Amino acid sequence: MSDRRTLILQAATRLIARRGVRGLRVEELAAEAQVSTALIYYHFGDRAGLMRRTLEFISDRAERYTEPDASPESDPRAHLEQMLLLELQDVPAVVENSSAWGELRATAVFESDLREQLRNSTYEWVEYATELIRKAQEAGTVGAEVIAADSAERLTTLVEGLSERWLSGSTSLSRARELLRGALVSELRLPGE
Amino acid sequence: MSDRRTLILQAATRLIARRGVRGLRVEELAAEAQVSTALIYYHFGDRAGLMRRTLEFISDRAERYTEPDASPESDPRAHLEQMLLLELQDVPAVVENSSAWGELRATAVFESDLREQLRNSTYEWVEYATELIRKAQEAGTVGAEVIAADSAERLTTLVEGLSERWLSGSTSLSRARELLRGALVSELRLPGE
Repeated sequence: MSDRRTLILQAATRLIARRGVRGLRVEELAAEAQVSTALIYYHFGDRAGLMRRTLEFISDRAERYTEPDASPESDPRAHLEQMLLLELQDVPAVVENSSAWGELRATAVFESDLREQLRNSTYEWVEYATELIRKAQEAGTVGAEVIAADSAERLTTLVEGLSERWLSGSTSLSRARELLRGALVSELRLPGE
Repeated sequence: MSDRRTLILQAATRLIARRGVRGLRVEELAAEAQVSTALIYYHFGDRAGLMRRTLEFISDRAERYTEPDASPESDPRAHLEQMLLLELQDVPAVVENSSAWGELRATAVFESDLREQLRNSTYEWVEYATELIRKAQEAGTVGAEVIAADSAERLTTLVEGLSERWLSGSTSLSRARELLRGALVSELRLPGE
């Protein structure tokens, strides 16, 4: 991706995380990214194109900052647990990403053109979690009775819900992490439990 | 509550559910409710006062449509399960309420004056669920090892997350309900399990 394009997407994520999608104007984004509005239209076509690429950028970035120490091959359960817990961290990139992600989800309730992209990103995330649970079942670190696809969809949904409660001031970050840890235990069971 | 006041709050919920909080203008609300803007200011003071009362109205209304058949006294577990499942229904009042609730939560990430009221409403909901789980534990229908406050906070958070995924088109209603049913089993355990 060109440097200018990346700069624009970083600026768009920052603005969405700061004030929401619905206040976002291309002129304002141009000022934030220090580029011309023409360059934004050249790279992204229209506002809908810009939103789609921003959602993709946010998802890709999340894959990087939620990259756990534990290997998905040698310890898929630990990898999954760390990946989900890394979504609940008080560091600028995570707060910015989670705020923007939550905002895009909330906006998709009203703006149908965001839905397909959001559904695809959600699906990829759920699929990856499902695959990790299946691998952990093969490795014997997750109970065989667990329905991988269900637990994966619930755990990722819970992470979104906890992020929203935390970012909107209804629960603390440490409480959100504690609740997620408890869910990992009750969803994935301990082997032999 | 005066009839006019209720009409204004119903109209505000409708508008928030239809287009979001951030596009809501008092002039537009006046038109929707067929009252004067002066009457709105008279009843609610300012936009922040209107938002607080709307949030309260939404929470109160949810208490009515999520009122289960099962008695909270004789079968607190069934009462809790029904109460949460009733939040995931394709009927206009629920869709409107859930859309507005999700939108208010998303907006509170950016507008700090909504946070206190939202925290209070969330707290009341979680407290009520906690109390039902404790009663069910006494009645022997929920496992004694379950931490009531944790399960209550997780289940209500999951309901919010599932509502958002459903309303934003990332999952179907039947799948959301299926996932919630599974969570009720894994969170509350079966007695003797």
